[in-house]
Amino acid sequence: MSNQAENKPPVETSSVPPTKTSKKEKDAKKFALKTAKGTRDFSPAEMALRNKIFSTIVSTYEKHGAVTIDTPVFELKEILAGKYGEDSKLIYDLADQGGELASLRYDLTVPFARFLAMNGNIYANFKRYHIAKVYRRDTPSVSKGRMREFYQCDFDIAGVYDPMVPDSEIIKIMTDVLSSLDIGPFMIKLNHRKILDAIFEVSGVSADNFRPISSAVDKLDKMSWQDVKIEMVEEKGLDENVADTIGEYVKLKGGKELIETLRNDDRLKDNASALAGLDDLALLFKYTEIFGCDDKISFDLSLARGLDYYTGVIYEAILLDQPVESESPKKKKGKSDADEPAGVGSIAAGGRYDDLVGMFAGTNKKGQPNRIPCVGFSVGVERIISILWKKQNVETLKASKTEVFVMSVGDGLIEERMKICKEFWDAGIHAEYMYKVKPKLQPQFNACDREQIPLAVIIGKGELEEGVVKIKNMKFKEESEGGGVAVPRDDMIAELKKRLQKMSLQ
Amino acid sequence: MSNQAENKPPVETSSVPPTKTSKKEKDAKKFALKTAKGTRDFSPAEMALRNKIFSTIVSTYEKHGAVTIDTPVFELKEILAGKYGEDSKLIYDLADQGGELASLRYDLTVPFARFLAMNGNIYANFKRYHIAKVYRRDTPSVSKGRMREFYQCDFDIAGVYDPMVPDSEIIKIMTDVLSSLDIGPFMIKLNHRKILDAIFEVSGVSADNFRPISSAVDKLDKMSWQDVKIEMVEEKGLDENVADTIGEYVKLKGGKELIETLRNDDRLKDNASALAGLDDLALLFKYTEIFGCDDKISFDLSLARGLDYYTGVIYEAILLDQPVESESPKKKKGKSDADEPAGVGSIAAGGRYDDLVGMFAGTNKKGQPNRIPCVGFSVGVERIISILWKKQNVETLKASKTEVFVMSVGDGLIEERMKICKEFWDAGIHAEYMYKVKPKLQPQFNACDREQIPLAVIIGKGELEEGVVKIKNMKFKEESEGGGVAVPRDDMIAELKKRLQKMSLQ
Repeated sequence: MSNQAENKPPVETSSVPPTKTSKKEKDAKKFALKTAKGTRDFSPAEMALRNKIFSTIVSTYEKHGAVTIDTPVFELKEILAGKYGEDSKLIYDLADQGGELASLRYDLTVPFARFLAMNGNIYANFKRYHIAKVYRRDTPSVSKGRMREFYQCDFDIAGVYDPMVPDSEIIKIMTDVLSSLDIGPFMIKLNHRKILDAIFEVSGVSADNFRPISSAVDKLDKMSWQDVKIEMVEEKGLDENVADTIGEYVKLKGGKELIETLRNDDRLKDNASALAGLDDLALLFKYTEIFGCDDKISFDLSLARGLDYYTGVIYEAILLDQPVESESPKKKKGKSDADEPAGVGSIAAGGRYDDLVGMFAGTNKKGQPNRIPCVGFSVGVERIISILWKKQNVETLKASKTEVFVMSVGDGLIEERMKICKEFWDAGIHAEYMYKVKPKLQPQFNACDREQIPLAVIIGKGELEEGVVKIKNMKFKEESEGGGVAVPRDDMIAELKKRLQKMSLQ
Repeated sequence: MSNQAENKPPVETSSVPPTKTSKKEKDAKKFALKTAKGTRDFSPAEMALRNKIFSTIVSTYEKHGAVTIDTPVFELKEILAGKYGEDSKLIYDLADQGGELASLRYDLTVPFARFLAMNGNIYANFKRYHIAKVYRRDTPSVSKGRMREFYQCDFDIAGVYDPMVPDSEIIKIMTDVLSSLDIGPFMIKLNHRKILDAIFEVSGVSADNFRPISSAVDKLDKMSWQDVKIEMVEEKGLDENVADTIGEYVKLKGGKELIETLRNDDRLKDNASALAGLDDLALLFKYTEIFGCDDKISFDLSLARGLDYYTGVIYEAILLDQPVESESPKKKKGKSDADEPAGVGSIAAGGRYDDLVGMFAGTNKKGQPNRIPCVGFSVGVERIISILWKKQNVETLKASKTEVFVMSVGDGLIEERMKICKEFWDAGIHAEYMYKVKPKLQPQFNACDREQIPLAVIIGKGELEEGVVKIKNMKFKEESEGGGVAVPRDDMIAELKKRLQKMSLQ
């Protein structure tokens, strides 16, 4: 009886109140009966899918030795300030009710950096995952799955290690997580901030224009080069020749052979930043080859990533056969997500950020910054859930774990049903019964069907006097079983366990 | 390498910044390096314990057919308004940044009622659990475990059923959950709002003074009757004789025999409300007897519960051998928690609330309120976690699930270590290795010990050429194994799985 709605599509409790709510609103003492804009409830069926996905993700994370931490939903306002560039306007603030000013977390990365800065003496080497809600006052879009409250699933490795060793494991984990989720073929675009900066440098961009130009490049996955060039030249004041040179580079993509091409490039071959980035990528390709995931990687010079804090390798996983959603780039402008997957069809993304912890941790006695280099990624789990929800066979979705429904024929036999349920619970069997003293038979069968409870135990006065109960397979109804198979009351639990065991193997 | 701190006590990242943080603060560009007041981070070891407790609780909830839903962390301000009496001042509001006014949820019950009011057509019969954080701007107390952000674990049954059938299952579930958590002996105080109101009525309290007097009675678990009487007479204007009559009743406690005593009580025997409440309790005792949990119940007329919205049975579980924490009742005044356990030593509490959904759901076409009766409880999980944390053998606590550490002797053999780890991951084995190209042996053993990784696979150039690796039991070091037992490279995974299987049975 717990979840009559399990077989139905998800309840749309979106920010747009349905008509019937408006009707109710009038009746209900003027309550606006809805959730706040950009937030929604999750039905039991949706939660069952969500928890299944989380547990798949966590099992991969844990296979690599990660542990989890939790941080508060809100942080001191100044902790978040200055970390998200122009997206800072999307931060939710708490009201000033006296005391400190606080804001809801915008992502899990900045709280993680704050945690490391506070506890770096203990967690200087740290592999952690964190699955939790984050908050952004963005324009919600139900169709695009963009909400103001949504989950992120972050995995990060913090610590001073040898080059590309943790980075390549991150790529391996990303590959494993995405492969485990049944979302179809994907690829991982890969680039390096040092290479990108070198390209800007040799093309003639001034250092203070690196990030604005980088953010223009970042739009190449949803705008043509012509439009990006217009933004560079007209909005960001770049010389047309400079833009054209950049254009030559950012159209390049390929495998590890592209590393050699760039090493021999006339402009880049003497650039220290470029060579450092290319050395990293060469090593990364070597290590990912060992991990068997290099075939998923495309070295793509057009990948730039929104956030300022990346300092090394950056990557973004995209689905290969996903329909491209159309969204006006103008509307999207300035709304590239932070460490959340940014591009269209992007389902996971991240990179190396070596200086973020230092922004909090200050300097040591020698005046050197307390750096803890980090590399990590975030799974775009809301998009994945929405893809899998559509694939889900909603008809066969069962949210409750109930295995047996205890019902009565004729007399209500409430006390007998209670006794039997107690025995089941104590034996670890998931059991329910109808909360009526004298229920009719049909509603009991209906409840059983509705919740897809696989087994029924049917009791009647006569049978009880004979010391038997009837067990009926509700999942695969067999004519031969009729009203159920009589089993001695004393063998009931053993028989049920045998049947449940058999079913779990089917 | 993921969690060097697992063996250490929990990181105190409380709202009170430790001295070293203040030191850092000066260095760190004036960042207040702390979490917001009344909130804290949770270390991997704490999270491991927390998740273990949650999963124990959930498995009991699910055994009774419950499913879970999720609601947003914030609700429209008006949804919460007027639900918590004078405790409403503890509600966190979001800043007015344009658009709707919203507040952080204060509990999980009001959002659940709002959910039911919106979706009552689908969820008119519903068993749901919800484990999530709630927010209260109360005075934090680290020693008492009272934080501004904390978890609640709610279980509720919604729907129109026969009297006391769901109520008695709630008592059974409460008993099972608390028994499963290894927190020692407990008992469940039980009372009924109708009986309490009848007592007030026959004693001569005016109807509009029922709730204030009820809230005075609620303090009997931490104040003497004399002090409660003073509050009733001096603060709440009760006639002294009336207070004395109440005093006679609220000192009564016992088992089901007390029901008969009250049925025959001169004042109560003709009071309809009292008789209805007593009928309920007689039935509840009968059903809980069937469920084998009546021995945990004490019918206690001094139990009143803080919240206004209860309409029937109310209950509160307390630990029997817990030291009573001293807290000035004056300080506590007006801060009785809502559906969170209220009294000292209280670890779970709840009751029946038949009218809360109707406050949102308005009326039907006939002008009748859209009622969905509910009964439920909340586990005071933070208090339980704090009890179990103290009991926990911190020395043996292992947060990561890593089973094998792959290490090298002599040469670094990074690529070989990577290859072996990949094989392990692909085989479902939790494996880690050191992110160094040429690590020394001792740091690798140290990492293994620190994380309590039970097995090591040790490779050397010579052995690899011979086609063998060495496996060493790190948990139960055996002298005879020395530097490990040589195993053919091809049998490595089978041998590891055999050993892990054996260990899991130990």
